[in-house]
Order: sequence, then C-alpha cells, then structure tokens
Amino acid sequence: MCESKGSVGIVGLGLIGGSLGLDLRALGWSVQGLVHRTATAERALERGLVDAVSTDPACLSSCDLVILSLPIPALLAPESTLLEAIPGSAVVTDVGSVKQPVLEVWRSLHPRFVASHPMAGTASAGVEAGQAGLFRGRPWIATPEAGTDPAALDVVRSLAQCLGSRWHTASAEQHDQAVALISHMPVLVSAALLRTAGDERDPEIRQLAQSLASSGFSDSTRIGGGNPDLGVAMASSNSAAVLKALAAYRWSLEQLEDAVLRNNWQQLHRELQRTQSLRPDYQQTSSSDAP
Amino acid sequence: MCESKGSVGIVGLGLIGGSLGLDLRALGWSVQGLVHRTATAERALERGLVDAVSTDPACLSSCDLVILSLPIPALLAPESTLLEAIPGSAVVTDVGSVKQPVLEVWRSLHPRFVASHPMAGTASAGVEAGQAGLFRGRPWIATPEAGTDPAALDVVRSLAQCLGSRWHTASAEQHDQAVALISHMPVLVSAALLRTAGDERDPEIRQLAQSLASSGFSDSTRIGGGNPDLGVAMASSNSAAVLKALAAYRWSLEQLEDAVLRNNWQQLHRELQRTQSLRPDYQQTSSSDAP
Repeated sequence: MCESKGSVGIVGLGLIGGSLGLDLRALGWSVQGLVHRTATAERALERGLVDAVSTDPACLSSCDLVILSLPIPALLAPESTLLEAIPGSAVVTDVGSVKQPVLEVWRSLHPRFVASHPMAGTASAGVEAGQAGLFRGRPWIATPEAGTDPAALDVVRSLAQCLGSRWHTASAEQHDQAVALISHMPVLVSAALLRTAGDERDPEIRQLAQSLASSGFSDSTRIGGGNPDLGVAMASSNSAAVLKALAAYRWSLEQLEDAVLRNNWQQLHRELQRTQSLRPDYQQTSSSDAP
Repeated sequence: MCESKGSVGIVGLGLIGGSLGLDLRALGWSVQGLVHRTATAERALERGLVDAVSTDPACLSSCDLVILSLPIPALLAPESTLLEAIPGSAVVTDVGSVKQPVLEVWRSLHPRFVASHPMAGTASAGVEAGQAGLFRGRPWIATPEAGTDPAALDVVRSLAQCLGSRWHTASAEQHDQAVALISHMPVLVSAALLRTAGDERDPEIRQLAQSLASSGFSDSTRIGGGNPDLGVAMASSNSAAVLKALAAYRWSLEQLEDAVLRNNWQQLHRELQRTQSLRPDYQQTSSSDAP
C-alpha cells in the first residue's frame, strides 16, 4: 500500500525535506522539490533527493500532496506566491516543531491542511543533511482539530506509516506542552549548564573543569550547544509552554537542592532512585532498533 | 619506562580497579587484588584482572604501590585491617571523585599517600565492568599538598602516564569545585529534568512527552538516571562545592528564562550563540581519538 502514491511537492530540502524526498522516491512517488536558491536546487538533484526541482512555486501545480518542510519563521509567514501555487485539492502538511501557532496561520489558508510533526533530530541542516530512513521508528504526531479534513488526515497518517514512523495524534495544545517538556525547555536547561561552566570566575577552575569534562557533561550539553536559530524559533513560537515547563523544572531542581542543603541524603537517595526508574521511559529508540 | 614496575595492590575490583588490573598486567606489573567477597575474587581471576587475589588484607604486604579503588564511603571510613596491612614504604593512592574529604582522612593515615582521580566514566560497575584501555586519553588529576611525598607523586604520575592518561595537578579545593561544576552538579540538573517530565500532572501530556522523547532528551537525562548511590556519594562528600555550582547554575538559567519572559529574542539568540561557541571546549575526547 506504500508504493507509487502519486506526486508529492516538498517545500524546502533541508534535513527533513531532503530525507522525505529520498524515502518517498524509494517508495515510487514522483517528488517535486521547491527551494529558494538555484545552487540548492542543483545539489538536491545531484544528491537524488528529488525527481525534479525548481525555484518557482508554480512547480507544485500538479502535486497531490504538499509537505511544507520550512523553518518555523518561514512557515508562520508564508510567501503569497507559495500560497497561490498550492492546488486547492492537494493535501497540505507541515513538519514544524510547534503546532498551535502553525494552525493559527494555516487553518484559514488551505482547506486540506493537516498540522503534523515528524520528530527526527535536528543536528544537521541544509541540502547535505537529508538521509534515507530518518523517520523509521521515530514518532510522527498530527494535531487534527474540528475543521481538519478526515481524508487529508488519512493521507498524512499513511505517509508517516509508510516511512516507518510511529503515528500519534494529540491536540495542538497538548503537543506543544509535551515538546516544551522534552525538547524546548531542555535546550535552555542544557544551555544554562554550558553558561555556568563558561562563566566560572576563577580561571584555573574554569580551565580545569574544561580539561576534566567527560562524556556525561558532553552529553548533557549537546542540545544546549546546538543551532541558536532553532533554539530561538522553538522558544519564541512556544513561549507560554516553555515558561510553564521552566517553572516546573525550577521547582523540581529546588527539591534536589533542598535535600543537599539539609544534608538529607536519604531523601536525595529516594529522589535519585526515582529518576533512575524513570530514565528507561525516556531512552531513545534508535532507528536501528526499530522494526 | 612503563614495563615491569614491580608489585601493585588494587583494593576493590570494580570498573576502575578492574580496568587498572588489566592495563597494569599488560604492562608487566604483578597485580595483587583485594576484595571483600570470595565470589568476586574468583570472577576477577577468571577475567584476568589480577595475577593473584585475596579477601585478606595481608595480601598487600609486599606491594610497592597500593591503589584504593573503593567507593567514596568506604574510602572515607577505611577498615583498620586494611590500614594495618598497607606497607609503610608503599606509595598509596586513591581514585575517588572528591579530594578534600579524602585528604582529610588519609593525609594522617599514611606517609606516602597521594590523592588522585582518574576520570574514566561510571556507567558500569562491579567485577564485570573492568576493561582494557579505559584510561587512555582521559584526564587523571592529582591534588598534592605541602606534605605530599614528591617521590610518591612521581610514581603516581608515571602510573597515570603509562596508562595513557592526561596528567593534571590542582589543589584539592580547585579539583572539588571543578568536578562539582562539570560532574556533580550536572547530575542533579539532569535528574531534575527527569523529575519534571515524570511529575507532569496531565497524564495525556506526560504520556505524549514520553512517546516523543528523542535522543536530545535521552542524552540530557543519562547522568540524572544513573546510580543513586554514586549520586549521593558525590553530593554528600562535595556538598559545599555542589551548592555553589547549583547557585551559579540557577542564576544562569534565570538569564535565559528572563529573555523568554521578555520576548527578547535577540538576547536569547546572543546567549545561544555563546553556548554554541562554548560547546566544543567541553566535547568529550573519546579514547579512540587519543594519541
């Protein structure tokens, strides 16, 4: 059921868009790419991300499905030429990491829009980043609402499942709070760790800490040392949920600090036993573990 | 210069002790293990961690070097039979992750004691954990003080260098503050992230967050979901430095939160650019990268 679905337009060929192109071509779809720059278009063709590519939105005219693989700011302020070029009969979806602001913009722009979010890493970017199998075993969440076209939702679900993703649906509000909790807020928590080490006033201690930093510190600061544009896009488009998650986080850290302050090692032990027992629930399923 | 140094006694054959045994045997040392339980002794011999092993401290009588590879609580309250068995002429060192409390106990217990700390991961534990090459490319810090025997310090430096470690010296106070900053405090920061996700009150959001957790959240919560005994040992033996580091951390997180609260995206971008530029300084050198 996943073979030869028709013609798909992918707007933006970065990590997500490029990876979608590779997988969908392998499934027999005809993939039309739309990018801003000629150099990107040429490279996308060379890499085999698309069957055809253009910098002219009109290239989308015969697509049955259009996937907006744009950064959040571009997604929230779509160009009028793009809007005019998307066929009214096409199913349209996006891949943005926040859903309420996207729906606020897009629910009135296209009758068959389905807000969705494939969660598939963000370490690389650009036309070189796309890779086959990126979505296998990873979650893909759609956030349908009362006005969402059920047939369009079915198309997006089928797309996600054909790519090997685990399909979820939720309200946009629940989605945005959940990603604030496990993605957007942790970026700030991790960034603050880097700031703390970098702001240590004693230069000898600062230098020693740098020399001694092990895989634990390295892992804990990976997301806080990532792309600033992405971090700002997440925080600014989801600020209410991020602030709520930060408040919960501060409270949680204070409980642990309180145990240290009171030398209450029994309490700290209980807390760390609990976090040890929570940890397996949040361990990543890598794509190689997926069925 | 690293071959056949003589006879070394290793007290405790967990991750660090067992790994020391494997590497030192490969260098031609005669390795004598001392453990508590007969079953551990048998398994250590089977695994080739040691040349000989005993549960009787008297086995250390002919050792030129004794390495105390004990958990912090045992190191801070050494058994009298152990103290009586260590030859007065032997160089004695430890591998504990805090140095001021260890020195407070040990500086008066043995004239040739050198406080040291090989930083080489803590994910596995027990007699099965020891592995060859664990120290290669990793930092090994000694914290000599006025009364430290310089010849004994030379022996420990030579030991660390023969195992491929990067040698550092610092005051015990500087060491303890540096490890609080990049190891002990981050455990609590990471544990608080797990607590925040686990304590989310809305069960649907909690469940969704769990389903959506990606490698970023998984990496960020690895050290917070680790061994509770180790976390408590770190926090309790280094509580002043941990509280100081936590205070600096809280301030640092508040700066980022403030930018979100004020919708000051320029400031947040500057901050995240800075953490992105700090990040390479703290990225782990894996053992395979080492010379």
